Amino acid sequence: MLARTSTMTQSTPASAASLAPLASAPLAIVVLAAGKGTRMKSDLHKVLHPIAGRPMLKHLLASAAELAPQHQVVVVGSGREQLEKALGETATIAVQEPQHGTGHAVQQAQGALAGFSGDVLVLYGDVPFVRASTMQAMLERLHAADEPAVVVLGFEPDDALAYGRVIAQDGLVAKMVEFKDADAQERACTLCNSGLLAARAEDLFALLERVGNNNAQGEYYLPDIVNIAIADGRTAAVVTTDDPDEVAGINSRSELAAAEARWQGRRRERAMADGATLVAPETVWFAWDTVVGRDVTIEQNVVFGPGVVVADKVVIHAFSHIEGARIASGVSVGPFARLRPGADLAEGSRVGNFVEVKNARLGEGAKANHLTYLGDAEIGAHANIGAGTITCNYDGYFKYRTVIGERAFIGSNSSLIAPVRIGADAIVAAGSAVSRDVSDGELRLVRAEQLIKPGWADRFHDAMKRKKAEKKG
Amino acid sequence: MLARTSTMTQSTPASAASLAPLASAPLAIVVLAAGKGTRMKSDLHKVLHPIAGRPMLKHLLASAAELAPQHQVVVVGSGREQLEKALGETATIAVQEPQHGTGHAVQQAQGALAGFSGDVLVLYGDVPFVRASTMQAMLERLHAADEPAVVVLGFEPDDALAYGRVIAQDGLVAKMVEFKDADAQERACTLCNSGLLAARAEDLFALLERVGNNNAQGEYYLPDIVNIAIADGRTAAVVTTDDPDEVAGINSRSELAAAEARWQGRRRERAMADGATLVAPETVWFAWDTVVGRDVTIEQNVVFGPGVVVADKVVIHAFSHIEGARIASGVSVGPFARLRPGADLAEGSRVGNFVEVKNARLGEGAKANHLTYLGDAEIGAHANIGAGTITCNYDGYFKYRTVIGERAFIGSNSSLIAPVRIGADAIVAAGSAVSRDVSDGELRLVRAEQLIKPGWADRFHDAMKRKKAEKKG
Amino acid sequence: MLARTSTMTQSTPASAASLAPLASAPLAIVVLAAGKGTRMKSDLHKVLHPIAGRPMLKHLLASAAELAPQHQVVVVGSGREQLEKALGETATIAVQEPQHGTGHAVQQAQGALAGFSGDVLVLYGDVPFVRASTMQAMLERLHAADEPAVVVLGFEPDDALAYGRVIAQDGLVAKMVEFKDADAQERACTLCNSGLLAARAEDLFALLERVGNNNAQGEYYLPDIVNIAIADGRTAAVVTTDDPDEVAGINSRSELAAAEARWQGRRRERAMADGATLVAPETVWFAWDTVVGRDVTIEQNVVFGPGVVVADKVVIHAFSHIEGARIASGVSVGPFARLRPGADLAEGSRVGNFVEVKNARLGEGAKANHLTYLGDAEIGAHANIGAGTITCNYDGYFKYRTVIGERAFIGSNSSLIAPVRIGADAIVAAGSAVSRDVSDGELRLVRAEQLIKPGWADRFHDAMKRKKAEKKG
Repeated sequence: MLARTSTMTQSTPASAASLAPLASAPLAIVVLAAGKGTRMKSDLHKVLHPIAGRPMLKHLLASAAELAPQHQVVVVGSGREQLEKALGETATIAVQEPQHGTGHAVQQAQGALAGFSGDVLVLYGDVPFVRASTMQAMLERLHAADEPAVVVLGFEPDDALAYGRVIAQDGLVAKMVEFKDADAQERACTLCNSGLLAARAEDLFALLERVGNNNAQGEYYLPDIVNIAIADGRTAAVVTTDDPDEVAGINSRSELAAAEARWQGRRRERAMADGATLVAPETVWFAWDTVVGRDVTIEQNVVFGPGVVVADKVVIHAFSHIEGARIASGVSVGPFARLRPGADLAEGSRVGNFVEVKNARLGEGAKANHLTYLGDAEIGAHANIGAGTITCNYDGYFKYRTVIGERAFIGSNSSLIAPVRIGADAIVAAGSAVSRDVSDGELRLVRAEQLIKPGWADRFHDAMKRKKAEKKG
Repeated sequence: MLARTSTMTQSTPASAASLAPLASAPLAIVVLAAGKGTRMKSDLHKVLHPIAGRPMLKHLLASAAELAPQHQVVVVGSGREQLEKALGETATIAVQEPQHGTGHAVQQAQGALAGFSGDVLVLYGDVPFVRASTMQAMLERLHAADEPAVVVLGFEPDDALAYGRVIAQDGLVAKMVEFKDADAQERACTLCNSGLLAARAEDLFALLERVGNNNAQGEYYLPDIVNIAIADGRTAAVVTTDDPDEVAGINSRSELAAAEARWQGRRRERAMADGATLVAPETVWFAWDTVVGRDVTIEQNVVFGPGVVVADKVVIHAFSHIEGARIASGVSVGPFARLRPGADLAEGSRVGNFVEVKNARLGEGAKANHLTYLGDAEIGAHANIGAGTITCNYDGYFKYRTVIGERAFIGSNSSLIAPVRIGADAIVAAGSAVSRDVSDGELRLVRAEQLIKPGWADRFHDAMKRKKAEKKG
Repeated sequence: MLARTSTMTQSTPASAASLAPLASAPLAIVVLAAGKGTRMKSDLHKVLHPIAGRPMLKHLLASAAELAPQHQVVVVGSGREQLEKALGETATIAVQEPQHGTGHAVQQAQGALAGFSGDVLVLYGDVPFVRASTMQAMLERLHAADEPAVVVLGFEPDDALAYGRVIAQDGLVAKMVEFKDADAQERACTLCNSGLLAARAEDLFALLERVGNNNAQGEYYLPDIVNIAIADGRTAAVVTTDDPDEVAGINSRSELAAAEARWQGRRRERAMADGATLVAPETVWFAWDTVVGRDVTIEQNVVFGPGVVVADKVVIHAFSHIEGARIASGVSVGPFARLRPGADLAEGSRVGNFVEVKNARLGEGAKANHLTYLGDAEIGAHANIGAGTITCNYDGYFKYRTVIGERAFIGSNSSLIAPVRIGADAIVAAGSAVSRDVSDGELRLVRAEQLIKPGWADRFHDAMKRKKAEKKG
């Protein structure tokens, strides 16, 4: 795939590969999240829908955090409680109720920013993938020599559709115009308004005071401040992103899926660039915080939940589901493995098919290769856990631990009834339900006598065949 | 993705979002299915190959059924028995043997339609996704004021290739022409003949009588009736679909896969529009009758077979395979779950990894989280089924039921040998094979003495290491 | 999808559907594999990275082998040991150390070809999918009446980028030119140099002697021999591939994934053309040597490792992972099945969900449908292996076999402690750990007394609820 080549000339490039030192003015972030999200058809607040295992709003706040803002204000309509629970102390929540447009929404943040003097960056909770470098480019532009009153973020989509247009030349805005109000010449302009905007706090709130609601919806529109500033003879600037995807809004589950796909696509490319083989990249799903080493092979259909760290030279076989796990060098996982939070696989250990590991550490070279449940356990180095082994860690009320010594051998189909401790080099015979500790080097065998009934099966078969025939007859 | 914009002007639009009241004339459907299907390389009749878990012919008949036809006649060549078995009483089968072209095929339906006076719609068993609204548009056109003798369905593909052309103006056909017989000007016409056609029964069969086979193949071609009608001075009309995909024929396994992909793509979009999150939509496969609620999350790689109903607020984790199951609100399924026909999961119940459920009901809040087989069972509300539990429902001849009471606790690795009944609040100890009923509140423990052999394992290890060394030595 | 139509006229077509008789001159293949492969970020030599389960170099050598070369020389820089191990006796390894360009690399093969008189074809280890028919077209061109000194392979990519250009007319090369040295007119030429080249051994090495390193890198470039030959008044010819993909180089994990995807795409189309239904072709991954029969259905998400042969009328259900297995007619596999090397499923047998089979034969009609591990085993015809059965084939040191007779019935959750033999028609009761042989028609029951403690569970629940309340209190 060839990179899209930017053809923009009129604006400051916003694609710096790494972040230059931040602008020195104090910064406040205002995130608008008061939209009803009707098209999501969900009881969950739109901005809390996850992408790569993390609410979309948190993706946005994480990018904004790279600019070290003094304040983060999230303006919400309904669903305030959900947001408070999700955000905790990390942001101030302002309520817009009733909702009279984007300009009105930003005004609701004014109380939370009382006394704040610095830059304000207006973001959108459902436009979560704006890069920190883009935000910074907007702020830098705000402090350029010509001191614009407002900096808007423009984008040039493949199809400009009915987006509002930014009529600009040489990066200076002449006019912001809604599509429905635009004339043919204005519509021919393909620089669109993302809605994102930066201004000094005093300018922002002063301009907002003067925005009217004399329009069909009776709403106060944020972009109006740009035209007001221009009418005042002040400068308004536009910074244009070279990647229209970063300002894509998420208004439906379909757009959510598309955003997830774009995120995963970029993450997969990064994993490969860093030295991981993805046999079928389109079938590997990373979480937002997955760490993957070098010379790692990830086969087809692997799902990472949050909290996974994969060291070098690991092989993750097909059909594996991994969350909250640490996987050391030389480990082999799957196929059909399920690693849950607290799984900790030491160097050279192996977790095979139809095996679930939860809150359990496998020591170096330990193996659990088949049909096993290891929960709340510690498995010693080089221990061998036979097929069908179950750690019985729960009695319906509490959880208990199983500790297995180094080089212990747990026979197949064993049940280890926690709390229980199996010694080093100990052997548990196949089919044993072990409820008492086993000492080092000991054999534990829990097995009844073999009852032998010669000919019984033959007689059973005869009887059953007769019965089956009778039923049919 | 932008919707393809129709550029057609010469024809009646066939994209009504919902079905208007049906035309009042009685209707007969004739489905041609006599093609050999050689390219499928299959012993299964081509029109019985499934898409979304349902034979393609049945997709077509289901759409046609929205028009409430009096007769459905399927014209077959070989494979008659397969079709009779698949269709039962739902359609009449007419046999075309030998096969002398599409016109000849339609004539084979004449016997089944003896005495029928009304409209006939000619469809194709390997063109299964024609919408009812399109069929209706054809019939409405047939009854328009200008009373055409025949209505054909045209389409405008991206590449007109060697399709037969419909030479038409303002929706009126001037000439039907095979590509090989078309001159340059006719080939430049991009309106193609889908083969579908509607006519009054008396017109249809009268015109067919006059079709000749004076061509290279010696076949009787159905589209010839259009030219004959025009030569008679009658009107022939064309209705053009705005979606060329709906008339795509399926002649190979590759085209079958492409049709499946298109169907799934539309179904996924509908599920998302209805309020389900599909983390990776391209990895979710629905069956033709899957019902999915609102605020449902379907993770990566979920396969639905027929007969599944999913209520609101369900989470289906990755790698789940679900068929014939009812899943109530608040249920969590998977990852790595297999639900088979008769699985019935009540509100808030959970089925976890490497668990198979067949013909079994889980009561409210019941849990079977790990490595379990539940077949022919009834699990009481809030019962906890330990890892590795197996309901032994089969003795090689008959199946038996297991009934587990509310709040019962089945210890790990237990075998419940049906028929067996476990009481409410009862506990079955881990590793027990239970062959007799357990009363309410009872503990059942089936376990032998623990045999302890101190030092045995150490001696075993020594002996085996020696043996291994000898083998190498 | 429409086939790309070749628009080339100046060159010999290289797309013969099948291989014509080979040119009669003896042939030597020289494969350049001395590149550092830095972008792979791998300790594994670049040309050993696998595609479809086989090192890319071996794909190339397998294609070259169709021309029956007398010599195969692989020129390596670092990683010689890895290549020696991978190639064994199949090729001669020549070392280029230090590395002074492609011309210098080919010279390193001269020693291995001492005394050889015939054609030399220069290939690249990281361009693994050049077709044998293309190689042959180059050799045939070399022996055409005008006897060119050198034949180069050209290609016409969608975007010619910075590839070196072949300035040619009517298939005769006028000049080879690096992109950076090309003038505007030369750059407008879209025929690019793949790097592949054929020449008679004596010409090749004589021309190489005259190549200089008077360039920015100080390297000896192989294409220079073409210009030298032309300067000598000799003819140089170009053969142009009609499929630019076949000369795509693999320099990163991303390009590796892209090559894998192309390979899989072609293989899936072939499987469908041969009469297999792939419900979702993009989720089926074949190995290089997978054999698939007719009227086979492969559901979603199936991974084939090397060594699999699938007969006719097999159904492989979703989420199956299959390697080194033979699957006879009428077998059903999966969903969620794992077949490992040595799995041999006889006609009509079934392997169901969460079942692993390794080095084990299932006789005709035998079934292992749920949660089972069968390793090192022989299962008789029509035997029924109950859910949760484990063959305990390993004692930590050695592996042992389990043999199960025809029509035997193994009860659920049984452990078969190998070496052990279960007779024909024998029954093993559910939950039994069987360590001694079971005779034909015998019932073996290994089960302790059922201990019944009425009311115990009720008292336990009361005590635990109190304890839980205390902990909270």
